[in-house]
Amino acid sequence: MSYFTEANSTATVNGRIGPDTDARLAEVMASLTRHLHDFVKDVALTPAEWDYAVGFLTRTGQICSGERQEFILLSDVLGVSMLVDAISNRRPEGATENTVFGPFHVEGAPIRAMGDNISLDGKGESCLFEGRVLDLEGNPIEGVTVDVWSDNADGYYDVQQPGIQPKWNNRGRFITGPDGRYAFRGIKPVSYPIPDDGPVGQMLAQLGRHPYRPAHMHYLITKPGWQKLVTHTFVGGDEYLTSDAVFGVKDSLVAPYERLEGADTLWRSPFDFILVPA
Amino acid sequence: MSYFTEANSTATVNGRIGPDTDARLAEVMASLTRHLHDFVKDVALTPAEWDYAVGFLTRTGQICSGERQEFILLSDVLGVSMLVDAISNRRPEGATENTVFGPFHVEGAPIRAMGDNISLDGKGESCLFEGRVLDLEGNPIEGVTVDVWSDNADGYYDVQQPGIQPKWNNRGRFITGPDGRYAFRGIKPVSYPIPDDGPVGQMLAQLGRHPYRPAHMHYLITKPGWQKLVTHTFVGGDEYLTSDAVFGVKDSLVAPYERLEGADTLWRSPFDFILVPA
Repeated sequence: MSYFTEANSTATVNGRIGPDTDARLAEVMASLTRHLHDFVKDVALTPAEWDYAVGFLTRTGQICSGERQEFILLSDVLGVSMLVDAISNRRPEGATENTVFGPFHVEGAPIRAMGDNISLDGKGESCLFEGRVLDLEGNPIEGVTVDVWSDNADGYYDVQQPGIQPKWNNRGRFITGPDGRYAFRGIKPVSYPIPDDGPVGQMLAQLGRHPYRPAHMHYLITKPGWQKLVTHTFVGGDEYLTSDAVFGVKDSLVAPYERLEGADTLWRSPFDFILVPA
Repeated sequence: MSYFTEANSTATVNGRIGPDTDARLAEVMASLTRHLHDFVKDVALTPAEWDYAVGFLTRTGQICSGERQEFILLSDVLGVSMLVDAISNRRPEGATENTVFGPFHVEGAPIRAMGDNISLDGKGESCLFEGRVLDLEGNPIEGVTVDVWSDNADGYYDVQQPGIQPKWNNRGRFITGPDGRYAFRGIKPVSYPIPDDGPVGQMLAQLGRHPYRPAHMHYLITKPGWQKLVTHTFVGGDEYLTSDAVFGVKDSLVAPYERLEGADTLWRSPFDFILVPA
């Protein structure tokens, strides 16, 4: 038995983990402690910096509420959310890639007919989203639920503006038929800032980073027997495409937006989703 | 420019740090991101574990109040507080070592005469604490403020029991004379648990760790021109000496407690403090 020293710190702390501890918990905590100590040693963290960190984490916890999750935001802007997502969704070549789920999905959106318009507030530039849900061999998949949601033309999701936006504005579920096709009308999404009036926003400002996400349409695509696909399609050409505050963009998820001349619907965004068996 | 991937995650996140960012902030955040990503990759953190971590950190922040700092507790039990303390207080051989400050110091304790009794509640086993404050060459240092505090015989500091313990119970400041000597009466401190009814206590339980600190007397020893010494002396033989919940024990800080037969004062704990010029 030796006492804690700068040199033996990690081994001493991890040596305390009891023999009856859940093996996975022990593995995670031992790694966390090791990396945390390595960080403190690498930068020679000062007491004043430690004190600031304690205050920052405390403010981050205290601003959380039923409507706000600042620790998820912190995880997002440090790339941790996307990293966890990437590790747990390694897919074969050709399959549609995952990206972050985000905090704005709502369970139980209305099931709509193919081609229906999900934009209920009359704002924004209308856009037809269409394509197919396919397997890795290019065969259509029937009976897939395509759950979609986006912000409105002002950059807010309906749940951020209860009483201002109609309920279920820019949300809906569509079920594919034998041809695997989906189609719906909505608006061309717009870029928007993540909530930046709390500790995470202050941190971004101190790091010279903006809080914007490039415009995107959310998709949750599910069918029993297939891997759940949580993804977005991004609006090609968006000014924040290469600097998404939460690192959600992937090359394969940038979708075309074709201008439709002379039509009621201004844009068309075609995109096929490729699922992987569970 | 490449988008975020599992492979380039750290470089992508750190590549966003703006050119006008404070250099030290940039260094600290880049290292933090690197170690955080390495941790996530090393254990292949699952979405469910990430979700648990978000909830744990949120609960840790939300239990904090004016009287309770759960993030400091978390830092303490993971050995981070002691590591920061060790790095910022590397002292030459022979100098008294630092240990954690703890949350229970109070500014402005009464200045008392040498030999006075700081135990005001009449509980506990009386103990004479005495010794000298010296420089590295063994010369006494005059005019040093020796600020001391401990728990009472029930294991609580006075500030944890307002209205129950007398104000300034087991606290006092003593100023050394030309001989560098200090002496005061108090009680032989007792071991006590850190607050374990919150997220940190639950974590300790899951890891098979107890929440106890071995019995100790706190010292804050200061004089302009000399390095501030924040330390404890520990009661030799305490059952938690080798398993302090916050890793504060150092070999050199374990003090003798000599039983005084037939005296009013039951114990004597001699200890010399060696200061380093600022």
